[in-house]
Amino acid sequence: MSETDDRHSEKMRKIQAARAKIMAGKTIERGLVIVHTGAGKGKSTAAFGMVCRMIGHGRRVAIVQFIKGAMQTGEKAVFDAFPDQVEFRPMGEGFTWDTQDRARDIATATAAWHVAKARILDPEIDMVVCDELNVALRYDYAPLDDVLATLQDKPQSKHVVITGRNAPDELIARADLVTEMTLVKHPFRSGVKAQEGIEF
Amino acid sequence: MSETDDRHSEKMRKIQAARAKIMAGKTIERGLVIVHTGAGKGKSTAAFGMVCRMIGHGRRVAIVQFIKGAMQTGEKAVFDAFPDQVEFRPMGEGFTWDTQDRARDIATATAAWHVAKARILDPEIDMVVCDELNVALRYDYAPLDDVLATLQDKPQSKHVVITGRNAPDELIARADLVTEMTLVKHPFRSGVKAQEGIEF
Repeated sequence: MSETDDRHSEKMRKIQAARAKIMAGKTIERGLVIVHTGAGKGKSTAAFGMVCRMIGHGRRVAIVQFIKGAMQTGEKAVFDAFPDQVEFRPMGEGFTWDTQDRARDIATATAAWHVAKARILDPEIDMVVCDELNVALRYDYAPLDDVLATLQDKPQSKHVVITGRNAPDELIARADLVTEMTLVKHPFRSGVKAQEGIEF
Repeated sequence: MSETDDRHSEKMRKIQAARAKIMAGKTIERGLVIVHTGAGKGKSTAAFGMVCRMIGHGRRVAIVQFIKGAMQTGEKAVFDAFPDQVEFRPMGEGFTWDTQDRARDIATATAAWHVAKARILDPEIDMVVCDELNVALRYDYAPLDDVLATLQDKPQSKHVVITGRNAPDELIARADLVTEMTLVKHPFRSGVKAQEGIEF
């Protein structure tokens, strides 16, 4: 083994030891409130990736979509393969700028929130994804106070994943895990259209 | 309809029109080089969410894992449900700080790259995920020049998704879509351990 390799081994041994020490202190297992926000891509997609993990572990998941309606046709086919584990509820009627009717948007978001709330409080369900709820909260289409109160009352082991741009500060304060997806580069800027598997 | 609702309708109509105009200019359909980087969570998870979309659209996907070995047990169960569409190749032998053997890490990463390269060049596969390739590139465990050359030579319609912290500048320059996942808040900091469905 060369000197470089020795130095590398020593360095890696130190990283390993430091990491083991950190992990030994992590003993709490509890349901998390997870927020994916920011203007970048991957907020909903990462939530759906978590749903896949839960499916693989035999858990039950509910997904409530607040804004997008016809999107996510790709994921739906996968969820349909696990009907006993996944309940998928697309409750949005398209983007708000497609409806042009504030009263209807509020009614739609309120109905979606009632469905999501019941699943968050249901101890039989392990994870609830509230997809694009942040957008509904931002336009006051869904009641932030009730969302925060429901997260307070949720079963201890329940994971709740909330996606969408502009997550409210109060939600970020309550959340356990917050990731901001930041756009570095986007192909739409060079004329590439939305494509199967990437955007939907 | 109240005055407020009228104003809202008008505003939404303008957003809708502007959006329609933008989307009409997006006519190019081609395979994308997609990079998920940054210190936050969701890089691999969002890639696996894209895999789900591709599955739903009947496409074929190969996933090569460069660093993580035993992780992603959750997703694997889902991929196994679609054996004709998904090839999952966990090629890493644990994190580098667990192996403490630079020569072996290089051999492992090189072998993984050869598997990934063959799939990137194979016109029968619609998407290749190179999970944690950025980490291998950063430590010079995988050859950046060959990665860039292979992306240049790939079939036109092929999507390639590359994840991991510290994506090299040359890769970002070549990529079509780059998202940085930024950590805002992490539960490990308050003693919560890695949990099924969230971390693996």
